[in-house]
Amino acid sequence: MQQILIAGQWRDANSNKSFQASNPATREPLANEYPVSTWEDCDAALTAAAEATVGLRSISGGQIAEFLETYATEIENNADAIVDMAHAETAYPKPTRLAGGELPRTTDQLRQAANAARTGNWSVPTIDTAAGIRSQYGAIGPVAVFGPNNFPLAFGSISGGDFASAIAAGNPVIAKANSSHPGTTELFARCAHQAAQSTGMPAGMVQLIYRTSHPDGERLVADARIGATGYTGSRHAGLQLKAAADAAGKPIYLELSSVNPIVILPQAMEQQHEEIATEFTGSCLMGTGQFCTNPGLVVVLKSDATNSFIAAVSEQFAAAPVGTLLSSGVESSLESNLEILVDAGAEIVVGNTPADSDRYCYANTLLKVTAQQFIADPETMQTEAFGNSSLLVVTESMDEVNAVIACFEGNLTGCIYSATDGSDDAAYDQIAANLQSKVGRMLNDKMPTGVAVSAAMNHGGPFPATGHPGFTAVGIPGSLLRFAMLQCYDNVRHDRLPASLRDENLNGELWRCVDGNWTRENIN
Amino acid sequence: MQQILIAGQWRDANSNKSFQASNPATREPLANEYPVSTWEDCDAALTAAAEATVGLRSISGGQIAEFLETYATEIENNADAIVDMAHAETAYPKPTRLAGGELPRTTDQLRQAANAARTGNWSVPTIDTAAGIRSQYGAIGPVAVFGPNNFPLAFGSISGGDFASAIAAGNPVIAKANSSHPGTTELFARCAHQAAQSTGMPAGMVQLIYRTSHPDGERLVADARIGATGYTGSRHAGLQLKAAADAAGKPIYLELSSVNPIVILPQAMEQQHEEIATEFTGSCLMGTGQFCTNPGLVVVLKSDATNSFIAAVSEQFAAAPVGTLLSSGVESSLESNLEILVDAGAEIVVGNTPADSDRYCYANTLLKVTAQQFIADPETMQTEAFGNSSLLVVTESMDEVNAVIACFEGNLTGCIYSATDGSDDAAYDQIAANLQSKVGRMLNDKMPTGVAVSAAMNHGGPFPATGHPGFTAVGIPGSLLRFAMLQCYDNVRHDRLPASLRDENLNGELWRCVDGNWTRENIN
Repeated sequence: MQQILIAGQWRDANSNKSFQASNPATREPLANEYPVSTWEDCDAALTAAAEATVGLRSISGGQIAEFLETYATEIENNADAIVDMAHAETAYPKPTRLAGGELPRTTDQLRQAANAARTGNWSVPTIDTAAGIRSQYGAIGPVAVFGPNNFPLAFGSISGGDFASAIAAGNPVIAKANSSHPGTTELFARCAHQAAQSTGMPAGMVQLIYRTSHPDGERLVADARIGATGYTGSRHAGLQLKAAADAAGKPIYLELSSVNPIVILPQAMEQQHEEIATEFTGSCLMGTGQFCTNPGLVVVLKSDATNSFIAAVSEQFAAAPVGTLLSSGVESSLESNLEILVDAGAEIVVGNTPADSDRYCYANTLLKVTAQQFIADPETMQTEAFGNSSLLVVTESMDEVNAVIACFEGNLTGCIYSATDGSDDAAYDQIAANLQSKVGRMLNDKMPTGVAVSAAMNHGGPFPATGHPGFTAVGIPGSLLRFAMLQCYDNVRHDRLPASLRDENLNGELWRCVDGNWTRENIN
Repeated sequence: MQQILIAGQWRDANSNKSFQASNPATREPLANEYPVSTWEDCDAALTAAAEATVGLRSISGGQIAEFLETYATEIENNADAIVDMAHAETAYPKPTRLAGGELPRTTDQLRQAANAARTGNWSVPTIDTAAGIRSQYGAIGPVAVFGPNNFPLAFGSISGGDFASAIAAGNPVIAKANSSHPGTTELFARCAHQAAQSTGMPAGMVQLIYRTSHPDGERLVADARIGATGYTGSRHAGLQLKAAADAAGKPIYLELSSVNPIVILPQAMEQQHEEIATEFTGSCLMGTGQFCTNPGLVVVLKSDATNSFIAAVSEQFAAAPVGTLLSSGVESSLESNLEILVDAGAEIVVGNTPADSDRYCYANTLLKVTAQQFIADPETMQTEAFGNSSLLVVTESMDEVNAVIACFEGNLTGCIYSATDGSDDAAYDQIAANLQSKVGRMLNDKMPTGVAVSAAMNHGGPFPATGHPGFTAVGIPGSLLRFAMLQCYDNVRHDRLPASLRDENLNGELWRCVDGNWTRENIN
């Protein structure tokens, strides 16, 4: 039985149940057994994390940066083992996806977070010299991270964006591994623990539990010792955690389901249907469709070009290799969610059949409804069929397009393809603002599956895509603000202020808003 | 029966109940009758607000600024009527409190909000030129504002900080009047409506309802058409609204109860007990103690100087005129909350008796407990007795002070008085970080009742003082972020970007974070 990491020690869990991950490419269980922790483990982690919070008060942003950078290097030193384990647990291709994509993204994120911690340029120091009031964002306290199944590295509980953000903002992290890749998470935890020890972090800075009961998870996010929680995963489990955290007044940041609507305007369709079909197929089937920003809903207008588009996509979906899905749960929920859509009247354009029986997979599937069908039951029609599938909504007019958009729930992204010659501009203006009000990121002429780690990125959006539309889960320094509280100093004596709020600028790189102006200068 | 303001029209409410405010100085009901609206009125307001949200898309920040400034002038033009009505409804003194204090604070806030709307310097434009991604905060949609009883002007539902912030961020407001000052709220609504009409705002920009049933209030904050809610008031009612909004995934910003602990360190007590006693009495009895930041809990160490301090405060409390309370509800809950504290073992130092029977009031009251009593039942001991009262916690040691602080719930403020000669510095260091982690604003050597409208202010703090420790209710532009969503533009064509995100800087005053650097320059 694998060990958990609590208070700086690898030790046996308090557990009376265990679980195994499985190899999606073979449906076979993998060798290692992982414990399901009881509340005792959660309680011990919370106590150690609370102690680490106190220890962190005398640790500078620069020291935290060293930890994150050392950890990134440690990951690179153990890249082969991590990639091998992640491949076994997810069946993601090694060179293109894991070694070549997610791993460098992960270490880049950790290094960006290190930079934010070192400069302090996430904390928005704000100084009113006349009133003698100074404020900035500061650590919120222990952060629980529940990572998703679909990015074992870049969104991993102890390696991904939530982890990097919470640590860089000065908080300890209690990571709950995703049950589909516990081994990968364990390898990261070993690297993180090593780096934490060699850079002098408090014992409870990084802790790992593999799994708990649902009630214990709810108790964890609501515990008095918790600062905040980051959760990425299914809507149902996320809403349970949200209810528990909300009732206790504890911030929880959720990334839940999103169908990421794409609208293709008539002239763009006329002029570019072949290119868009290829782009769409690539985006929709990439990673077997298991991206948060997978284009799961495509709104088009009836036309000959649209028929050609549908035919091309249908052909490509049929011809493309059927990717492997992450788990039997993903496989069965893809199948059952597609069934919900078909039962509600969606027509099968292609797919919707089981594929190979010796691995987790399901045929590349494209469904189709009319605008009237969509509008008649929008909640059902927005069922997220997570995986290699998408739903076309074929409308008769721009008014119908707008009526469809009016039914949208909150989404991470929304995209409009329009002709480059201006011939779609009136149609664009008719729908763009309506679409934008429902999404966190608005795109033009580009599929949403690329989520750049940029300061200007918003990987967020209105409920139920996330729990709060004012925060992003990707993009440093913005993502750190989720794990921060606003701290104000009123008439506090100068030598008692944090270094970042004293008259002398902490370092050459800290931007501060002093009396309404952003500056890197000292205050005279 | 007074009329409500819906969709740009003053009209009769859908109502089958009514209420009257009363004059706190006489306990007599005031003449006007106000309707309790049914859901039909809420529904109509939501529909009009949703339409206004669409209308606002073609209205610039500069036009919103004009509205806010015109409104501020309109308030000044009607200052006498507003002050007279507020005086009748609250019994607050006219010259010192209403005309000389709250009214100029209110118009100043509206003008600061106008400036934020005009410059755009609240929206944090963030541009990544290499990635082609640009983002900023934008309007979240219709905002419901539930104002408190204690600031009829500066926190009024349709005149105060939440209103100014929500409007400046580009949102329509549905104001729910506080039932203790409906007439004041109506006068503000008339000024706001006038200003909205003369500056071309959409019909549903400012709307007023006086009261609803509790279930209708909960339905309102959870409605699909709502963007967010601002609530300031009692903990019980606030938590009911929070539960409803949370379940619907709608942001709600709450300012609930806070006892605002003060710690007086031994040498400060020794050297300054007379001055601190006078400061404390002034702060605690100001406005009959009906401030959100009233110092309701004072932690001291046993000493002769402390005995002198207690004697001085006791004498001052007994000698000071007993102020009038805002309503019979405030009077009765002050009495019953003091009873809870006394039943739990608090000793009465002074007061705790009814005062004049012909007005709402209760004797200036100081209670006292030991640290051991406090620690034995911290939840009860932190009962907020809103009004002219405070609780002393007399400790035996700094360890006891820290143990008391460890029991604190989240508060808006926390303050430490320490000797100016450095003799308390070790004691300060022992407790400051612990106290700070429980509060939104940390003060030195100063009572918390002054809340400057400064960009660096934080009028917020951990639950249950507020619903989220990352946001402030006072201080522009920060307070606008509560009523905003993050909006990202990825590969969006340049002429389709909002003006504030295009290469050319919108105006000379807009600060933008371009590729990690804050600048007012154009992008080349």
